Amino acid sequence: MLMTIPQQADPLILSAANYKRVPKHVGLIPDGNRRWARERGLPVADGYQWGGLKGLQMLQDCQGLGIEEVSIYGFTQDNTKRPKDQRIAFAKACVAFVEAATQFDIAMLVVGDANSPMFPKELQPFSQERQGSGLKVNLLVNYGWEWDLRAAMVSGKKQLHEGLASAQVSRIDMIVRWGGFRRLSGFLPVQSVYADFFVVEDYWPDYEPRQFHEALDWFQTQEPTLGG
Amino acid sequence: MLMTIPQQADPLILSAANYKRVPKHVGLIPDGNRRWARERGLPVADGYQWGGLKGLQMLQDCQGLGIEEVSIYGFTQDNTKRPKDQRIAFAKACVAFVEAATQFDIAMLVVGDANSPMFPKELQPFSQERQGSGLKVNLLVNYGWEWDLRAAMVSGKKQLHEGLASAQVSRIDMIVRWGGFRRLSGFLPVQSVYADFFVVEDYWPDYEPRQFHEALDWFQTQEPTLGG
Repeated sequence: MLMTIPQQADPLILSAANYKRVPKHVGLIPDGNRRWARERGLPVADGYQWGGLKGLQMLQDCQGLGIEEVSIYGFTQDNTKRPKDQRIAFAKACVAFVEAATQFDIAMLVVGDANSPMFPKELQPFSQERQGSGLKVNLLVNYGWEWDLRAAMVSGKKQLHEGLASAQVSRIDMIVRWGGFRRLSGFLPVQSVYADFFVVEDYWPDYEPRQFHEALDWFQTQEPTLGG
Repeated sequence: MLMTIPQQADPLILSAANYKRVPKHVGLIPDGNRRWARERGLPVADGYQWGGLKGLQMLQDCQGLGIEEVSIYGFTQDNTKRPKDQRIAFAKACVAFVEAATQFDIAMLVVGDANSPMFPKELQPFSQERQGSGLKVNLLVNYGWEWDLRAAMVSGKKQLHEGLASAQVSRIDMIVRWGGFRRLSGFLPVQSVYADFFVVEDYWPDYEPRQFHEALDWFQTQEPTLGG
């Protein structure tokens, strides 16, 4: 299918000036790519491809807001048990996303088990060290919550966070999930403990800044307690 | 203040027959006790006391539904940094809750750091071993997510779950939080990874079966994937 740049029905431009309180670190669960494609009679791969484009748009929105760090669910070790064509499609979409995103002011880190054939070799350098400077982006690729936590068990570190496989990922202030499900699905369990969780009903490939605005607007009304 | 049994405005009786799919294990975050008391000009302690009564009612509702296990946020290590009168009030409410609940068919386990003066001595036996038989109830008392996970780091166990301080608590299917906040606040991070998360706007002392019914009704529409 010939891809065109998605129609921007919504000219909303997100600006930090519109919010009293902008989260420093946003978690993003871009769910619903498959459902989006199926409902349109498109191959699943198209859902992931559009999802990747929307991811780039969202990074730009985060930059405009002065957000410092974004963690994005790419795919998990559990996801790799899906049919091979899907597996190839989402891995490819992650590689394309990283290659495109790093053309901009992005400090990219890929977090996931890189010692596995499921981990795209193109992303190896990003799993060893954060590459570039600017908005910190942590893309979870072949990530597993158990893999992450078990690293802490064998790390010999005293501090839990330092021992995690995702040790370089900081605490998350707000998580936004697209696609309607109200669950974390193993997304960075330690960094997410105090995060405010907002769910958008629309599928991720239908991302519009308006949805992110609604999440930010809601975030204003939340009182951070950090468990106190 | 003289306490009376809360008026039961809502005669709804919850029954498993009304649901195709009843969660085996429900997590409960009974938030809003302080806000409830303040809005009524009552001492904070009254909020916890009413909360405890509503907890007993909810256990009965769970029994009627054939739910097997319920995990309840009592108080956390972070909470113990609050003013002393509050600390005493919520600890007392937890003790009263356990003493009352164990009069019924309940298998009670208290999960939390029992090697601390913040842990009520009356609850020590329940922290060592589950007491009684029937509906499994796990009450988190002086619990901390970091305390829980760090136990796994020093356990020498191979399996993460086995090493947790909360190893006896199983995976949670659905978490319901009262009081409007959409965050987990460190609630059993490992057991919660795949849980569906439902938020009730009302404060916990205003618990009514109708709210639980809405959560269960919503749960019917959720598709469990366990990360797949």
